[in-house]
Amino acid sequence: MNLKMMRYIVGALVQIEAALFMIPILTAVVYREWGCLQVFGATALFCLAAGWLVRGKRPENAMIFSSEGYTTVALCWIVMSIVGAIPLCVSGAFPNPFDALFEIVSGFTTTGATVSTDVEALPRSILMWRSFSHWIGGMGVLVFMLAILPMGATGMYLMKAESPGPSVGKLVPRVRSTAKLLYVIYFFLTVLQMILMILFGCPAFDSINLTFATAGTGGFSVLNSGCADYNTAEQIILTVFMILFGVNFNVYFLIYCKKWKEALRCEEARAYLGIIAAAIVMISFNIYHIFGNIGETVLHAAFQVASIITTTGFASVDFDLWPEFSREILLLLMFIGACAGSTGGGIKVSRIVIMAKSVLKELAYILHPRNVRKVRFEGKVVEHDTMRSIYVFMVAYLIIFVISILIVSLDNFDGVTNFSAVASAFNNVGPGLNQVGPIRNFSLFSNLSKLVLTFDMLAGRLEIFPMLILLLKIRGRKRWN
Amino acid sequence: MNLKMMRYIVGALVQIEAALFMIPILTAVVYREWGCLQVFGATALFCLAAGWLVRGKRPENAMIFSSEGYTTVALCWIVMSIVGAIPLCVSGAFPNPFDALFEIVSGFTTTGATVSTDVEALPRSILMWRSFSHWIGGMGVLVFMLAILPMGATGMYLMKAESPGPSVGKLVPRVRSTAKLLYVIYFFLTVLQMILMILFGCPAFDSINLTFATAGTGGFSVLNSGCADYNTAEQIILTVFMILFGVNFNVYFLIYCKKWKEALRCEEARAYLGIIAAAIVMISFNIYHIFGNIGETVLHAAFQVASIITTTGFASVDFDLWPEFSREILLLLMFIGACAGSTGGGIKVSRIVIMAKSVLKELAYILHPRNVRKVRFEGKVVEHDTMRSIYVFMVAYLIIFVISILIVSLDNFDGVTNFSAVASAFNNVGPGLNQVGPIRNFSLFSNLSKLVLTFDMLAGRLEIFPMLILLLKIRGRKRWN
Repeated sequence: MNLKMMRYIVGALVQIEAALFMIPILTAVVYREWGCLQVFGATALFCLAAGWLVRGKRPENAMIFSSEGYTTVALCWIVMSIVGAIPLCVSGAFPNPFDALFEIVSGFTTTGATVSTDVEALPRSILMWRSFSHWIGGMGVLVFMLAILPMGATGMYLMKAESPGPSVGKLVPRVRSTAKLLYVIYFFLTVLQMILMILFGCPAFDSINLTFATAGTGGFSVLNSGCADYNTAEQIILTVFMILFGVNFNVYFLIYCKKWKEALRCEEARAYLGIIAAAIVMISFNIYHIFGNIGETVLHAAFQVASIITTTGFASVDFDLWPEFSREILLLLMFIGACAGSTGGGIKVSRIVIMAKSVLKELAYILHPRNVRKVRFEGKVVEHDTMRSIYVFMVAYLIIFVISILIVSLDNFDGVTNFSAVASAFNNVGPGLNQVGPIRNFSLFSNLSKLVLTFDMLAGRLEIFPMLILLLKIRGRKRWN
Repeated sequence: MNLKMMRYIVGALVQIEAALFMIPILTAVVYREWGCLQVFGATALFCLAAGWLVRGKRPENAMIFSSEGYTTVALCWIVMSIVGAIPLCVSGAFPNPFDALFEIVSGFTTTGATVSTDVEALPRSILMWRSFSHWIGGMGVLVFMLAILPMGATGMYLMKAESPGPSVGKLVPRVRSTAKLLYVIYFFLTVLQMILMILFGCPAFDSINLTFATAGTGGFSVLNSGCADYNTAEQIILTVFMILFGVNFNVYFLIYCKKWKEALRCEEARAYLGIIAAAIVMISFNIYHIFGNIGETVLHAAFQVASIITTTGFASVDFDLWPEFSREILLLLMFIGACAGSTGGGIKVSRIVIMAKSVLKELAYILHPRNVRKVRFEGKVVEHDTMRSIYVFMVAYLIIFVISILIVSLDNFDGVTNFSAVASAFNNVGPGLNQVGPIRNFSLFSNLSKLVLTFDMLAGRLEIFPMLILLLKIRGRKRWN
């Protein structure tokens, strides 16, 4: 193992995080939160020094390979979370360290589940750090590092481990250029949404926070009422941008290259929009009696569907009170998730489509054994290796899911609470149903459950394998080296 | 398609069912239930005549292939269920045809979920027919037909479609001999249990009914209290035999051949017993405070674990009142199910073990890309085709599961009720949780939900593909032929 290079990357990451603390520091200055300013400032200085110590000189041999890539990414995310939790804990906003860790992991993994019972009472710089952590985690902090530091071929393994989806598409041949392009698109869409929100009358602070949360498909809000109190125009903007940030960024790259036809032909994005449309129609029929007029019904159906399938987790109404059919459609959307290569979580539309196609292929095979066809996706044959990795992902997903539910159930809440809490954390959504519904929070769980859910959020964001590989490496250090 | 041969098989099946009606007819005579005697007698005569008409002469070309095998098996099970439901409906025991169909499908598929609110009020011949349907469905009526009618190579495709598990093991080279052997083992174990039950003081009628239900891993009982009122010895016998009928029948064949060592080495059976032991221990710790003494705690934990993992569905206590951790372990066991090649349902232990191994293999592959190992099960390499069929099965399983829950949720019961009702029906267990808990029943659902659950029971028993192929054939008759 190239331990030197791993140290170098982790050290650089901590220093980058020090730089990122500038956002909450600025917020603290603007809102004159001197206590928070000290906490964030001290943490940033500590990060700079610690990062410098850990990082050392850039090693001659900068190459790391597949399994080291996974380990490094998992390690980076854990270190980043622990460092990010320090100001939350020290400032007194989340005095229980388990709470602070849960909250910031929920931020970085773009889950948006909170343990705070009253977000409006939190200092604004803390709120900003929470929201900003969504933005950082959405596209991936290592992708950011790749964009600014030269990494060579090593970058590919890091990107592979951090980016969601069954296969990583480099937009352009060089990893660094790909990373830059992704961040340019990301930045552009973010600024666009912020401007629109402010234009339609949303306060600047709320606009910035909500936009960070939307862009990362996170879901932290700055009001206790979530998004219920924003006006219709703002809710429409949020709906549209949530959907936009759930689209595979390849599509935006194609649009950027003016390849309109190819952009429109993207199979995953079309399936994604199709699922959204179908879910909105079904839920609208089911909840029409609550609102009594088509406009409001469709608005709230669309907002909630967009919020849940992109795994953002905002809520414009308490959908926990909706009829069971709508609740279960939303629960299903949590699992489906957004497109691969977006900032959203969940199993990802591409995996769902490929798996559904594999069942159809099997049926066709039983009916016509001599007529063997291959599964095709985005116009290409799905290779055996991709297929296998999708299946193995699903099995690992189910195993972690089941074990998590069993541990969380020791707290003895009802089944729907446990199931939806794990589903929500593991798919990086945010709210669940019953005790963890959109107007509730995760503070009721024991520290053990919070730790399990924290692990689930990280495993979900990194698509399981990095976390498992890290665990195996820690457990079997002697055996594996 | 060899339609003539399919007609011949369906016709023969209906005639066999006529013969099977002798059991409830005899019961009706013994208990002087003259009304039921008439109903069963008339149905039997009708079956004999209809079977003769449909069957026709044995066609020259007796060969049917894979997809026809699936279609035939699905068709046979549907016809058998409709015919079997007639006496339930006509006798007035289940006047709603949807109820009658649900009840008999629950019988044949060895689910054991009932829509009856008062089983003790049902005539004894009806009770006997319900229980006997478990026994018939457990090993499979077509396997029975294969044992008594010469079918040649056709038999293999029928057996493949009707027998549970990822791959069908013929015990001996000839299908007909395999079918006979399976029924001999089945019959022997059944008689053994009946004798033991009677010896330990259980009334003869109850003994016969409970044994049929245990052997088929069904779960219909003859008392409203389920199995709560039987004495400890009887509950222990039930526990042991439930576990025995969930073991892969290959093991009994090996024992029959005196190959003790190989029998003990059966990987699936060992995993199955390991899971049972682990579940009993975990639940015992969790429920100890309810009973307060070790004996009773372990007895009830073991009874419920054996009942649920084998998908029998008996209950000696109302486990719906147990702490959430135990409830969720039981829910998990529903999905795991018994061994392949047993009379139990669920996903099957062998599939679970192979899938878990494939995840471990993938992790090893990431850690050591040059050191590729294959997944091995029962000492043999798992071929790519078996692996694929397991994965595709799982995906199809999940798709049907989700669609079923969405439709059932239109009845607007709580999520745990819907989830556990579908889990219970699809895995052929019987009881679920909350509104469909062990002391409740399925009568509360709408006809639509009952129909969906009926489909799930059939799809679960036949392991999905026969039902899907039949649906495709019906839908696309012109296209596929």
